[in-house]
Amino acid sequence: MEILKGACIIGQSGGPTSVINASAQGAIEAALKAGCITKVYGAAHGIRGVLDEVLYDMGAEDPAEIARMKNTPSSALGSCRYKLKDPDADDTDYKRILEVFKKYDVRYFFYNGGNDSMDTCNKISKFMLKNGYACRVMGIPKTIDNDLFGTDHCPGYGSAARYIATTSMEIYQDARVYDTGMITVLEIMGRHAGWLTAASAIATHFGAGPDLIYLPEVPFDLDKFYADVEKIYRKNGKCIVAVSEGIADKDGKLMVEKFAEGADVARDSFGHAQLGGIGITLANMLKAKFGCKTRGIEFSLMQRCAAHCASGNDIAESYAAGKAAVDFAVSGITDKMVGFKCDRSNGYKCEIELLDLALVANTEKKIPAEWINAEGNGLTDAYVDYALPLIQGDPQMPYENGLPRFARLKKINICK
Amino acid sequence: MEILKGACIIGQSGGPTSVINASAQGAIEAALKAGCITKVYGAAHGIRGVLDEVLYDMGAEDPAEIARMKNTPSSALGSCRYKLKDPDADDTDYKRILEVFKKYDVRYFFYNGGNDSMDTCNKISKFMLKNGYACRVMGIPKTIDNDLFGTDHCPGYGSAARYIATTSMEIYQDARVYDTGMITVLEIMGRHAGWLTAASAIATHFGAGPDLIYLPEVPFDLDKFYADVEKIYRKNGKCIVAVSEGIADKDGKLMVEKFAEGADVARDSFGHAQLGGIGITLANMLKAKFGCKTRGIEFSLMQRCAAHCASGNDIAESYAAGKAAVDFAVSGITDKMVGFKCDRSNGYKCEIELLDLALVANTEKKIPAEWINAEGNGLTDAYVDYALPLIQGDPQMPYENGLPRFARLKKINICK
Repeated sequence: MEILKGACIIGQSGGPTSVINASAQGAIEAALKAGCITKVYGAAHGIRGVLDEVLYDMGAEDPAEIARMKNTPSSALGSCRYKLKDPDADDTDYKRILEVFKKYDVRYFFYNGGNDSMDTCNKISKFMLKNGYACRVMGIPKTIDNDLFGTDHCPGYGSAARYIATTSMEIYQDARVYDTGMITVLEIMGRHAGWLTAASAIATHFGAGPDLIYLPEVPFDLDKFYADVEKIYRKNGKCIVAVSEGIADKDGKLMVEKFAEGADVARDSFGHAQLGGIGITLANMLKAKFGCKTRGIEFSLMQRCAAHCASGNDIAESYAAGKAAVDFAVSGITDKMVGFKCDRSNGYKCEIELLDLALVANTEKKIPAEWINAEGNGLTDAYVDYALPLIQGDPQMPYENGLPRFARLKKINICK
Repeated sequence: MEILKGACIIGQSGGPTSVINASAQGAIEAALKAGCITKVYGAAHGIRGVLDEVLYDMGAEDPAEIARMKNTPSSALGSCRYKLKDPDADDTDYKRILEVFKKYDVRYFFYNGGNDSMDTCNKISKFMLKNGYACRVMGIPKTIDNDLFGTDHCPGYGSAARYIATTSMEIYQDARVYDTGMITVLEIMGRHAGWLTAASAIATHFGAGPDLIYLPEVPFDLDKFYADVEKIYRKNGKCIVAVSEGIADKDGKLMVEKFAEGADVARDSFGHAQLGGIGITLANMLKAKFGCKTRGIEFSLMQRCAAHCASGNDIAESYAAGKAAVDFAVSGITDKMVGFKCDRSNGYKCEIELLDLALVANTEKKIPAEWINAEGNGLTDAYVDYALPLIQGDPQMPYENGLPRFARLKKINICK
């Protein structure tokens, strides 16, 4: 093993999750302990913090506050959606990153994010290699969307899935309480892959979830949808539907956009657009169609930030992923993303495996066709078997005054 | 004490809460133990179950499932929104209720609900008294709205407040994560009283809540609202606003209706209304006004059914209220609602007190003007001092397969 001595930067990027800070904590704590890592910097708002030289001294933080990152949702260091250009077309940003790395003697770079972030991480890794700058670059996955290629699942997914299944179960109790007809439409995140919406099927599996589930993987047909809902509603007087925000027709056109088309009229008396999302839209359409009470419910940001309802397994695995990235880098590995390899044949075992950054960047993983039922409106038990271990375990949330006690970092900028 | 021997009926009514079943459990367990209560019936869908003779034998339920009602949201026996007529105008329903009471020898009637339910309870009580039918009638309060007169607070409020404060804190983390401008509007329940929306101020008190809070108690002025938001947004680049669904202008007209006026145009290409609620509407208006990213988030049903986030104090008090109703009735009391009298001068003490049904029925309690700040866009510390004890305590939720394990009642109908 070749010892590489120098500072490290940890950055967070993309949409927040309940557990992205658990990964950051795993990486920060491991880096602070590593003898060859001289300084541990947190980049403010991901790669933007590197470009703008806003780097926090993580060694100056109270270790007790760093420990609380495990239960603090969203990205404690700040996030960004900045996309690096193709270095062959424009390498300005890369040159700037190299300049900053050199200035602060950065020899380790850990980037914590989803698809786009792994692309950023991959491009930086390749640029450093090409320019002969000794630097170990590791990706730490994170996305509630669960759509990263090569890994069994993504840190963040289990907690979002637990929130969605729990909330679906609670709404099931609520939405069936009156002796009158009622159709409820749950809108769940997921533009291209239905992993999040699928999680509502876990509630259904245990007898208290949506009757019908529509994913972006299956082309949405409005007539079929009406027929599906009518069948359940006529039988039970109630119907709960879960739809992915990304449901699209057979040509790939998003339903929410399709419904809004020609709706230049969809403005209030002040001339402002008053459009709801696909859940509210479908609820209103079902009301017009069946004349019963309907309600559209959007799980909105809660599904990605409800840390009080996070999965204990997800927290532990996210932490382990962050720690592993540092430990592997220190041992000489570079240009990889940390992934999970799981065995469900005899209980549930989850092991760390390393994947080539180039392989995972920009590849999307969708729900396998065989996990979707024949009608295209629900999930099979194979999905539940896959997802159930991921939502297990209490988050062990620390409380103060009856409310979650989140980490309070000082975030002292060492630059300039 | 005069011993009155006979059966009892317990009914649930109005909008569900996370803890209405804790009250029902308290009443059912006490009634099953009371020597003078011969049978314990649960009315299906409140008073409708009495009128339609759908009564469940609670003695036939597994005690372990009854015990799980403590953590099961919504109304396990079913709810209704049926309003009894004025008995002087039409006493058909009352005669029918008396007929059913006589048929099943019902001598105790416990009704668990909010304002309208206390009105129902009061009318039944008075009818039985007038007709000389020996029957003890007690109201058990329940409403997330916290607007019942005479009691310090209502069972159900603490849990909804805890959900709202917790979720506001989590969204605070999420909505501030990017280095770009963002305005977030939270829409919280409460048509006439701002108690629920006020709960977001607890998060603000601890440094992680909405910047601005608008209640139905303060006439809403759009220009003032824009100016308030602009001030915060220009300073911080972010702004989080909480609005009550019931905010209304100085003439009492609901803002959501006012904005939709003349919006016969607010339809999609299929001709269906696509209106969002006031939160989404204001978010869209702010986007048009300030040109930044905005997001409207409706806490929807989750605020009244998120039992996994319920307040331990609220669960215990709700249970105690149900138990007290039965214990007092058995001891000879009738025609009362169970209320809470609280002392916050040295810690928090909550005692049961009895209130006349006639007094509480149909009287609404709003937030005292002195608890609202001078600007009319926030709460004072006096509110936080009032509310904080109500959100304390872990719900002690039983989990199975990583998900809440709710009660599963057999609900065996003894009638016909």
